[in-house]
Amino acid sequence: MNRKFIVYVTGYIILLEAALLLLPLAVSLIYGEKCVFDFLITIGVSLLLGSVMVLSTKNTGKTIYAKEGFVTVALSWILMSVIGALPFFISGEIPSYTDAFFETVSGFTTTGATILRNIEIMSKGLLFWRSFTHWIGGMGVLVFVMAVIPSVSDRSIHIMRAEVPGPVVGKLVPKVRQTAMILYLIYIALTLIEMVLLVFGGMDLFESAVHTFGTAGTGGFGIKNDSIASYSLFNQITITVFMLLFGINFNLFYLILLRKVRTALKSRELWVYVSIYLISVTLIVLNTLSLSNGFGDALNKAAFHVSSIMSTTGYSISDFNVWPSLSKTILTVLMFIGACAGSTAGGLKISRVIILIKSIGREMKKLLHPRTVSKIRLDGKSLDEQTVSNTFSYFALYFVLFFAILLIISADAFDFETNFSAVAACFNNIGPGFNVVGPVGNYAGFSVLSKLALSCAMLLGRLEIYPLVLLVAPMTWSKKK
Amino acid sequence: MNRKFIVYVTGYIILLEAALLLLPLAVSLIYGEKCVFDFLITIGVSLLLGSVMVLSTKNTGKTIYAKEGFVTVALSWILMSVIGALPFFISGEIPSYTDAFFETVSGFTTTGATILRNIEIMSKGLLFWRSFTHWIGGMGVLVFVMAVIPSVSDRSIHIMRAEVPGPVVGKLVPKVRQTAMILYLIYIALTLIEMVLLVFGGMDLFESAVHTFGTAGTGGFGIKNDSIASYSLFNQITITVFMLLFGINFNLFYLILLRKVRTALKSRELWVYVSIYLISVTLIVLNTLSLSNGFGDALNKAAFHVSSIMSTTGYSISDFNVWPSLSKTILTVLMFIGACAGSTAGGLKISRVIILIKSIGREMKKLLHPRTVSKIRLDGKSLDEQTVSNTFSYFALYFVLFFAILLIISADAFDFETNFSAVAACFNNIGPGFNVVGPVGNYAGFSVLSKLALSCAMLLGRLEIYPLVLLVAPMTWSKKK
Repeated sequence: MNRKFIVYVTGYIILLEAALLLLPLAVSLIYGEKCVFDFLITIGVSLLLGSVMVLSTKNTGKTIYAKEGFVTVALSWILMSVIGALPFFISGEIPSYTDAFFETVSGFTTTGATILRNIEIMSKGLLFWRSFTHWIGGMGVLVFVMAVIPSVSDRSIHIMRAEVPGPVVGKLVPKVRQTAMILYLIYIALTLIEMVLLVFGGMDLFESAVHTFGTAGTGGFGIKNDSIASYSLFNQITITVFMLLFGINFNLFYLILLRKVRTALKSRELWVYVSIYLISVTLIVLNTLSLSNGFGDALNKAAFHVSSIMSTTGYSISDFNVWPSLSKTILTVLMFIGACAGSTAGGLKISRVIILIKSIGREMKKLLHPRTVSKIRLDGKSLDEQTVSNTFSYFALYFVLFFAILLIISADAFDFETNFSAVAACFNNIGPGFNVVGPVGNYAGFSVLSKLALSCAMLLGRLEIYPLVLLVAPMTWSKKK
Repeated sequence: MNRKFIVYVTGYIILLEAALLLLPLAVSLIYGEKCVFDFLITIGVSLLLGSVMVLSTKNTGKTIYAKEGFVTVALSWILMSVIGALPFFISGEIPSYTDAFFETVSGFTTTGATILRNIEIMSKGLLFWRSFTHWIGGMGVLVFVMAVIPSVSDRSIHIMRAEVPGPVVGKLVPKVRQTAMILYLIYIALTLIEMVLLVFGGMDLFESAVHTFGTAGTGGFGIKNDSIASYSLFNQITITVFMLLFGINFNLFYLILLRKVRTALKSRELWVYVSIYLISVTLIVLNTLSLSNGFGDALNKAAFHVSSIMSTTGYSISDFNVWPSLSKTILTVLMFIGACAGSTAGGLKISRVIILIKSIGREMKKLLHPRTVSKIRLDGKSLDEQTVSNTFSYFALYFVLFFAILLIISADAFDFETNFSAVAACFNNIGPGFNVVGPVGNYAGFSVLSKLALSCAMLLGRLEIYPLVLLVAPMTWSKKK
């Protein structure tokens, strides 16, 4: 295990966090808020810690392997959240450190689950930071660091694999560094377009920035207790569209930039994503029509919430907890499916579901004709067997951990729907679930243990399980191969 | 596809059902009940249909392959339920045929979910038949037919594989026919011992038979609205023990008969089963102690219900729906795990869970060291890769179908806990779930569509998914290989 390398890269992440904290610092300066000092302290802590880590490990020497990638990713995200929680805690606006940690993990993992009972009394600097963590976590910090530190990027496909969601992570261009840069540029461009549109739709710059961060990272933190409900129809529709867009594999945007629109439109994952979206919206409109103010209202709400849940964002424009069982169960199933691989969204990812279903089909064929040998193909390429068994294993591990966390939080004696949807909403990085944790509720009532378990669920979801599990698995740290 | 063979064997199953119906016929004769005629009509129908099917296909010729095995198993179970429902329907005691079909599927699949609001007004002949279907379904009818028709048994490992639960089905002795006979003899012996014990504990012969059938098949149909609650403590403990016993792989009993006790006790699955049982009972006792009449009462209830849920029987001695969330969630998780492969129990099966967890471990090892090649070992033998990928595929297909059925039944607008536990309780062949379908509730309120979907879930669970899915899959019926 190349421990030096791990400390070196994690140190850079902390330095990056110090730099990123300058933005909310500026916001609190502009609004003349007290939390300026809380940000300054946190920046100081990050600078000190990050510098010590980077300087003490400058000559990292040897190349790295997969295990260093997993451990670096897991440690970076945990440490980043530990530090990112400081401004909330030091300011006293979130008096419990567990709560502040939960909120920060929820931010970085783009979950959007909150322990705040009343968001509207928070200071603007902190609200900005809270939403900005979504934006940072959406594309991933390690991908960013790789894009800017030349000495790291050469050996970084392992890190990229560990941080970027989805079963198949490809490089867009031969060099990891360029790939990371292209992804970030697309991300920034889409972010700017949405910000402009939201301002055009009536938000002020602060509101526009906060909600764009929440959409781009598919996070869902807002600044109002009723989320997006009080904003204009134009902005609701804008957010509906952009939540869907940020749920699409960024590779497709790159293909479109290269004018390979046809290749992009051939993506099986994209079509399945769009089909599931349209079918779900149709079913929910039919199911909720009698509860709504006419067809337009039903359509707007269904389109918004399906987009919000599928992209695992979690914004809401009405209390979908009062919807009929069918609509709520559709949302529950969508929570698990999530959106496309290589996007900022969570969940199992559509491509993983496609691979699963194709693999099940192949297994059934094998039951009938045991000697058949066939490859699974996706978008014209055949998948290697490692990806197939890895996808199966991911799915199994996902449900094993899901039920383990469900067991832990059920000690709090909330009802089953609350508990089940809380784990689903955290593990799939959505945010709101049903009942107590529904769109008008929050996670404040859970015990410290449950909040930590749910924080764990959020990290497991965002980092796609393996980095975190391998971090604590003895086999990672054992000397023998 | 050797269609003749399929019709031939299915015909034998129907003839077997006619023979088995003589037993409830005798019971209703003894009690002088009106339903004698309903049984006679059903026996007549079965004899006619079965004879036509067997006689018209006598020279089945060619050998059979896996697909004939799956299709035969699926068709037999469906047809058996279609006919088995007739006495309930013709008698008018279950006026809706859908309900009668649901109840019969629930019986044969050893689920024990009921649509009856008041069991106690049913005639004894029908109650006997209802519980007897558990006993028949527990060990499997095709295994029985293979044991008695020499012309079938030679080619029947495919059928045995398709009907006997668990990821690895081995023959106890080289001949399938003898294996089937040994299994049935053990089954009958255990049944007789339990019957004697229950009579000794205060039940009359009828009660003892009915409840032994329910225990042996791990079904759970009783004859009282409060299930086992009003019987003696001795009988409650007897049933606790026998539910656990019938959840053990029957191969182990065979090993014990051969005085290979040590080999039997080395079974990993057995130890995991016992450990999960003891841990769950301990946790539930601690969690429910304050609600109980002292430690003894809490222990009896926890021991009974954990045994009942793990073995997927579904008997109850109190309303576990009022237990705290933690205990209910433990029961929910146990519903999915189930008991041992090669027993009469449902659920995913412990050995499948063990294989899953070992396979996940191996995948994680491969992530760290991509070139590692290692075999998964269970009880000293290494598993072939086909079993591993098949187990993964089973697990994935299980959850895909689980959520599909959950979506269908959620159209009925019951709460999420009711719906989720209803699908879990049917798919895993348990019977009672929580809330509306809890131990004091029933499935009467569901729509016709939902009852059919849940019947499908029960068959999927008992036949372990593949036979039923392959029955309707186009690939099974296509001519090309």
